[in-house]
Amino acid sequence: MLKVLKFGGTSVGTLDRIQNVANIIKKIKDEGHDIIAVVSAMSGETNKLIEYAEYYSKSPEPSEVDMLLSSGERVTSALLSIALNEQGYKTTSMSGREAGIFTDSSHTKARIEEIDTTNMKNAIKDGKIVIVAGFQGVTIDTKRVSTLGRGGSDLTAVAIAGAIEADVCEIYTDVDGIYTTDPRIEPKAKKLDKISYDEMLELASLGAKVLQNRSVEMAKKLNVNLVSRSSFTPEVEGTLITKEENIMEKPVVSGIALDKNQIRVGMYGVIDRPGIASTIFTALADANINVDMIVQTRGADGKTDMDFTIPRTDLEICKKVMSQFKAEAEKIDYNDTICKVSIVGVGMKSHTGVASKAFSALANENINIRIISTSEIKISMIIEEKYAELAVRALHEAYHLDK
Amino acid sequence: MLKVLKFGGTSVGTLDRIQNVANIIKKIKDEGHDIIAVVSAMSGETNKLIEYAEYYSKSPEPSEVDMLLSSGERVTSALLSIALNEQGYKTTSMSGREAGIFTDSSHTKARIEEIDTTNMKNAIKDGKIVIVAGFQGVTIDTKRVSTLGRGGSDLTAVAIAGAIEADVCEIYTDVDGIYTTDPRIEPKAKKLDKISYDEMLELASLGAKVLQNRSVEMAKKLNVNLVSRSSFTPEVEGTLITKEENIMEKPVVSGIALDKNQIRVGMYGVIDRPGIASTIFTALADANINVDMIVQTRGADGKTDMDFTIPRTDLEICKKVMSQFKAEAEKIDYNDTICKVSIVGVGMKSHTGVASKAFSALANENINIRIISTSEIKISMIIEEKYAELAVRALHEAYHLDK
Repeated sequence: MLKVLKFGGTSVGTLDRIQNVANIIKKIKDEGHDIIAVVSAMSGETNKLIEYAEYYSKSPEPSEVDMLLSSGERVTSALLSIALNEQGYKTTSMSGREAGIFTDSSHTKARIEEIDTTNMKNAIKDGKIVIVAGFQGVTIDTKRVSTLGRGGSDLTAVAIAGAIEADVCEIYTDVDGIYTTDPRIEPKAKKLDKISYDEMLELASLGAKVLQNRSVEMAKKLNVNLVSRSSFTPEVEGTLITKEENIMEKPVVSGIALDKNQIRVGMYGVIDRPGIASTIFTALADANINVDMIVQTRGADGKTDMDFTIPRTDLEICKKVMSQFKAEAEKIDYNDTICKVSIVGVGMKSHTGVASKAFSALANENINIRIISTSEIKISMIIEEKYAELAVRALHEAYHLDK
Repeated sequence: MLKVLKFGGTSVGTLDRIQNVANIIKKIKDEGHDIIAVVSAMSGETNKLIEYAEYYSKSPEPSEVDMLLSSGERVTSALLSIALNEQGYKTTSMSGREAGIFTDSSHTKARIEEIDTTNMKNAIKDGKIVIVAGFQGVTIDTKRVSTLGRGGSDLTAVAIAGAIEADVCEIYTDVDGIYTTDPRIEPKAKKLDKISYDEMLELASLGAKVLQNRSVEMAKKLNVNLVSRSSFTPEVEGTLITKEENIMEKPVVSGIALDKNQIRVGMYGVIDRPGIASTIFTALADANINVDMIVQTRGADGKTDMDFTIPRTDLEICKKVMSQFKAEAEKIDYNDTICKVSIVGVGMKSHTGVASKAFSALANENINIRIISTSEIKISMIIEEKYAELAVRALHEAYHLDK
């Protein structure tokens, strides 16, 4: 098999940890697999370099930031290569450029445009373990070093796995897979063996520390089998994230996600004229605000109430946008003591009664639901934040996810 | 003027020091000059990375060491670029690859084969200050990153200055130029305004901390005007190292050098058969031992004594080589309590009596001379190490170098 392995910052955080990664790779190589390992910078390195840059400038030139930050992954790739080499394995490190990763020219948040796998393929043909400095490439036009932004090393791994048609892309972090819910909230949470891309995307909050949606979306697009597993407990099988067709037994509900980073915006007594909703949400979209759930309630007097949620980080800019609609409503308020719990499962498509089970589970705990939204594989509910953990546990129990 | 400026490790040792370098560059740019600045890694960085590599291997793969070490200069170049950018100057950092520096494939001690100045010229045409990560290039054949070994950043600067026909190449360190002798030994030592390449090469020990011979040789070959000056006192003019023709007033003696890193090897009672000297010195050369001074004294009984000096670091290997000649001599011994003092000056060529002045200066201090060797512009003497400083001061005085 050809395996792409990705090791994040904590997995390569110290010289000892890098040695541990070398041991993991050795074992896989000894089993007869070909390996491309993608590595992040040692944890703390990137932040240190950012602090250096900020010593000189609040907004340093992005192309120079890329020159700066890309050095961290180069160091790790060389060290891991040296460590494996010393054990008698043929290896080669590769910068993003050497791995053939070409991006657009949006420095510090570049998008991969193209991967030329020639170099990597040749090295593998020579029996070498390839160790790629993640998070970076070169721009197609100027051939300057570029970086891919947050989660960039995961993206590197997934994109390489897609381009080179690897059998699997294993993402090693300090967490051993995707759980039915956050084990810090519900100790009875179980690790999932398999989950579909779409479920994973909806369960973002469960994988937040493990997999960025950007990587899962790319894996889905390129049909890459992703595995989330831990470099701290490599003997534990992780969670396979794959296409729905590969999952034989589809659970009705796969997991419960919790999102505390939402703000509920309420507009009350809006004069209901045609196009008003469209005007408001267009203005919010133009300001790059990611409106999540929307509910509209029409009153008897031709007026309407609108509720919607936005990410907490967008609050200030949202207030600014909303100020132009003051005249349209009797009142606008912002509630940051809410949270969103979501039930996710591909099996919902073919099962009825999933939602009602959730509603009664929450009702049993006297939890009011403020907003509900549903999709084919997800039911999301806005509730008061103080009930967050209780709701998660109640839902986890209701769907027997601990079984 | 087009100036190539090179800033070494201590000149960019901290974020503050890098800001100081930015200020030096600003001032020169404001005077209307075009600038290519070559930078080293922040002091300590390279050693830290070497220690990292040695954690895994006593002899790490050289190409991986290059991947590792080259990151240090990249960081400095990006930071300096950001610092200047913030002050409103157009800048661009360049890796060795971007600066068009192509080397042979002797990783960790690569030689520059070729410089493609296109990128740098275009950037300068665009009004940019170019900041090159020193010490590195890419191999011509595989296009892998390579490093140039000790003094590599100086070499980068000199080679670029030569290739792009810069008016001057200023090497900034923490020393403000070349002195007539080591000021720690003779406080009356004077800074030289100008000195020829050949004198500088012979005075290596005076410039050891400032300029490696490898760089001076390249400057001579490429006819680059080198200036040695300090980033700590940039207002002080440094020492210009240039071709002899550019120096109008040629002093008879320019400086006194001291070398305490020599070992004197003595072979006594050697049976004097044809070819014996050749056999011994060929064997030493084959072992890469740099034999410096040789003196042979023939005795009356058809036997001969041979004395020669070697660098202290080659002692063990020299002993090994010499062991095969045990039968040839009555005795072989090694004396590490000697040192070499040298008088250097292009004016010697056209002046007589230079040597005899040295001999009497040392005789006046009751210092015995064990070995003497002379070249067109240098007189070297091996004396007992305990007289080293006294000899330097006596010679400095004898040639009125404090005037």
